[in-house]
Amino acid sequence: MARARNRRHDRLDPCLTFLALRVSVPIVVLGLTQMEKPAQTDYPIEEILKRRWSPRAFSDRMVESEKLQSLFEAARWAPSSFNEQPWSFIVATKQKLEAHARLLSCLVEKNQQWASLAPVLMVSVAKLQFEKTGKPNRHAFHDVGLAMGNMLVEATALGLFVHQMAGFSPEKVREIYGVPEEFEPVAAIAVGYPADVDVLPENFREQELGLRSRKPISSFVFQGKWGEISPLVS
Amino acid sequence: MARARNRRHDRLDPCLTFLALRVSVPIVVLGLTQMEKPAQTDYPIEEILKRRWSPRAFSDRMVESEKLQSLFEAARWAPSSFNEQPWSFIVATKQKLEAHARLLSCLVEKNQQWASLAPVLMVSVAKLQFEKTGKPNRHAFHDVGLAMGNMLVEATALGLFVHQMAGFSPEKVREIYGVPEEFEPVAAIAVGYPADVDVLPENFREQELGLRSRKPISSFVFQGKWGEISPLVS
Repeated sequence: MARARNRRHDRLDPCLTFLALRVSVPIVVLGLTQMEKPAQTDYPIEEILKRRWSPRAFSDRMVESEKLQSLFEAARWAPSSFNEQPWSFIVATKQKLEAHARLLSCLVEKNQQWASLAPVLMVSVAKLQFEKTGKPNRHAFHDVGLAMGNMLVEATALGLFVHQMAGFSPEKVREIYGVPEEFEPVAAIAVGYPADVDVLPENFREQELGLRSRKPISSFVFQGKWGEISPLVS
Repeated sequence: MARARNRRHDRLDPCLTFLALRVSVPIVVLGLTQMEKPAQTDYPIEEILKRRWSPRAFSDRMVESEKLQSLFEAARWAPSSFNEQPWSFIVATKQKLEAHARLLSCLVEKNQQWASLAPVLMVSVAKLQFEKTGKPNRHAFHDVGLAMGNMLVEATALGLFVHQMAGFSPEKVREIYGVPEEFEPVAAIAVGYPADVDVLPENFREQELGLRSRKPISSFVFQGKWGEISPLVS
């Protein structure tokens, strides 16, 4: 662990050490004030993975169609069990305010309060049975997660942020959009450019500026038997 | 679509057009022959997402511990529903051959034939209930998928490849490793450096060199109602 800490990027670079101390830092890029909260990692990982996080403060800047196409294309190339590609997305943007409001109405009230800011809303949907055999696909939700993993990387690369929500009504999505029985709405998704925290209703601001936390990898990497920490990560 | 095609990187770069024509290309890097099969995308995406694929031909080169630590660290920073982080991993490497053989024995026979090459084997595991409330976490598998999405990006960045498998016995994993009831083995995972196709048993070689295919994004991005293709992607 000591060795790993010495390898942390932020120990090597005084500029990043400064970022680490501030934890969340407004960065002025092209005149826009953006919130960044890079992950404080114990071991080195790709910058694009460190930069990804799930803000609630979204700018009213529209997301270019070309960028949305790249998000879906990225999702498209995720791996999946038997290459089933069990993911779909329902999308609404503020270019059609009524459509945006309709998707927003599927979110729980607390999420609506901030997600109304996001210029793009989506719902991810899983196909629960294999196309060819009709048998249950136990990896349907997992593989939607893989597709989202790709989308998150592409979004981060394009300067976008994504906030996924469990707090929405799958039943309402099914009803409003006519989602067939063999499909299941998985998560609601807000996409947009980041904004300064003060665009948020006051009750969300403290959380937006808070620390990002994760369990250490020694708590979830085992060998030999369940709960036996792998020496790789101890 | 026509516009999108014009934006394809491979139309702009004669070198990539050459790659596109070859589809799968042995690339000599530092004297090693590696198989690369970059995704043939309709819209531009990050190179690291294009390069990721799931080979069966793994080199016998060991994976450095530092790289494995970075894989788990990357998984650690994935987002998850209520920040539950419902992922765990059981790991075995060829540094302990008996442990590697034990994990290999959980795979279906056909997967054992090629996965025996991979110097690192894992099983991803999902915690099915929320830690705090004990209530079912409907996103447990999804969020394991998100963690894997991060791991795949980190692996690709480090020159590693990952092949996930549905073909294994969750029951055998549960029995051998003593996985508690509230956890569920999700997928088996092979990790390593790529090798030339001829390391594979003959019956796997054709598939290894085959085309990578995906449904077009117009088949899974909807707006307004289910099945109505979004003009963003039509």
